[in-house]
Amino acid sequence: MTAPGYHVLGIGNALVDVIAHAEEDFLLAHGMRKGGMALVDEARSAALYETMGPATEISGGSAANTLVGVASLGAPAAFIGKVKADGLGRVFTHDIRAAGVNFDTPAAADGPATGRSLILVTPDGERTMNTYLGAAQNLRPDDVPAGLVSECAITYLEGYLWDPDDAKAAFLKAATLAHQAGRLVALSLSDAFCVDRFRGEFLDLIRSRTVDLTFANEAEVKSLYQTADFDSAVAGLRADAALGIVTRSEKGCLIVSREETHAVPAARIERFVDATGAGDRFAAGFLFGLARGLDLPIAGGIGALCAAEIIQHLGARPACSLRTLAEQSGYAL
Amino acid sequence: MTAPGYHVLGIGNALVDVIAHAEEDFLLAHGMRKGGMALVDEARSAALYETMGPATEISGGSAANTLVGVASLGAPAAFIGKVKADGLGRVFTHDIRAAGVNFDTPAAADGPATGRSLILVTPDGERTMNTYLGAAQNLRPDDVPAGLVSECAITYLEGYLWDPDDAKAAFLKAATLAHQAGRLVALSLSDAFCVDRFRGEFLDLIRSRTVDLTFANEAEVKSLYQTADFDSAVAGLRADAALGIVTRSEKGCLIVSREETHAVPAARIERFVDATGAGDRFAAGFLFGLARGLDLPIAGGIGALCAAEIIQHLGARPACSLRTLAEQSGYAL
Repeated sequence: MTAPGYHVLGIGNALVDVIAHAEEDFLLAHGMRKGGMALVDEARSAALYETMGPATEISGGSAANTLVGVASLGAPAAFIGKVKADGLGRVFTHDIRAAGVNFDTPAAADGPATGRSLILVTPDGERTMNTYLGAAQNLRPDDVPAGLVSECAITYLEGYLWDPDDAKAAFLKAATLAHQAGRLVALSLSDAFCVDRFRGEFLDLIRSRTVDLTFANEAEVKSLYQTADFDSAVAGLRADAALGIVTRSEKGCLIVSREETHAVPAARIERFVDATGAGDRFAAGFLFGLARGLDLPIAGGIGALCAAEIIQHLGARPACSLRTLAEQSGYAL
Repeated sequence: MTAPGYHVLGIGNALVDVIAHAEEDFLLAHGMRKGGMALVDEARSAALYETMGPATEISGGSAANTLVGVASLGAPAAFIGKVKADGLGRVFTHDIRAAGVNFDTPAAADGPATGRSLILVTPDGERTMNTYLGAAQNLRPDDVPAGLVSECAITYLEGYLWDPDDAKAAFLKAATLAHQAGRLVALSLSDAFCVDRFRGEFLDLIRSRTVDLTFANEAEVKSLYQTADFDSAVAGLRADAALGIVTRSEKGCLIVSREETHAVPAARIERFVDATGAGDRFAAGFLFGLARGLDLPIAGGIGALCAAEIIQHLGARPACSLRTLAEQSGYAL
């Protein structure tokens, strides 16, 4: 086992966010669940785009946002995900590279267009997402280079991508390669509906120790164990996962394993603006800390600090250098 | 002369803004003049995009932004401009239509890509623009439908587009059609460097009454008359223009003709955030007011109110309905 070349490798959906304001009536008229994430096909994506308001395009994707956060903290970061060689694909590729993340997955020459998430922001600030995965779901095992995985301290898998068979095979290949190189594998459960759909498979991944770290928020961990009782859900995760990290918004996070429990408070904020990307950004800080060999509560603290940064402004990408922020907050990185 | 179908028609560059943060050093290293607008060719645009940071894409264009403002005020608005049938072209087309502006100029099937303005925002909030006009400069007289021009109360021309011969011919065709239908023609001088390049031609357009209304800011009117003395410059415009409208940031605006002068104060703001688009938005309010048949000082007041809205948030598109804003401010629309 050699020293890792990259601290964190993310594997997930390569998506561009297309963000517009909308009234509640618009959501109702189009049968959307406010605050939810719905997968849509190309035809529905095109029809929604046609009727939604003027938009802003900005690169997104859950794990991709996490890796941008890791890079902003100053750690070497890499991402694997699929775009098509089209306009939005060039936008995604430019943006993630410009953020300092290594990204070399070949773009698809044909097939579905680059994935995009149509995000409708209602006057109350809530975001309702309609995601057309497009090229992103065509990630295949061939897109996972053995050399890259084995030189990354932690490989981080986005639960949203656990769906097409090829993408699952790509995940499993990455997990195997990582463990062969003595590295760690992390999984984000991504979304409570996602958990509901793949509960058995996610539990298998966790119990078989195909993944070492499991990230979940309260809704996701409750969905995983099919209980409304938070403590029962956490008890389940504690028993099953090598390490479970449960984020709880303003209540901070819990880090649990059979051996230990750490409760890390949320970082103080001046004003709450927009919760989008808080979980992704928490994972960035936590993975960064862990890859640096910091203690779990310290890693949790950096995660909380990074999450606090993002919820104080609009948009899922950092408004300042997270490294500077962490250093100013007293962390020795 | 029949009642106008559209209140305002804009003719200008169809551009998408690509906005990223940059340090002052980046501007210096790439030989940019901070706060300026430079026209760049495709190769330089591509090279700059390659080196600039992660970006946000949002539809822009000077006259296009003005027409979005007119539509937000609740008046029928139309725009003529050229995109290519590519990714950014679809983004521009969607956004301006979604904002309520009629836009039917056929997209180019081949030739240069849709124009874009690479905008670098330095830590002091200043914006430095590098604009690749691309398809936008290929606007031709054929793109100006006679029927549309003759049913618009005011046709508004963006000075930035006064450059390629075909675009100039398109402008002149529109001006002729408008006047034949008894409508008004307005010109924005757009930029002091633009004025410096086309001073003689702009003066000809104004003196020959090819344009009835001339919009300029302080720098542009000084450049037009090659004087550092504001009063001399305004005296020149008063003598030459059927109607001159000079915007002066926090000092409000002057509306001048040989017969009358109106000084309209700036609208009160809570906080200054970003001056981008203030001139375009002022023009929106003024043109809206004039097309509605309101008195010049009232039209100026609506312009000032619209400009005040935009400088209090980031980005060149309205954060709220301008109609609601104007009504709440006591204007009877």
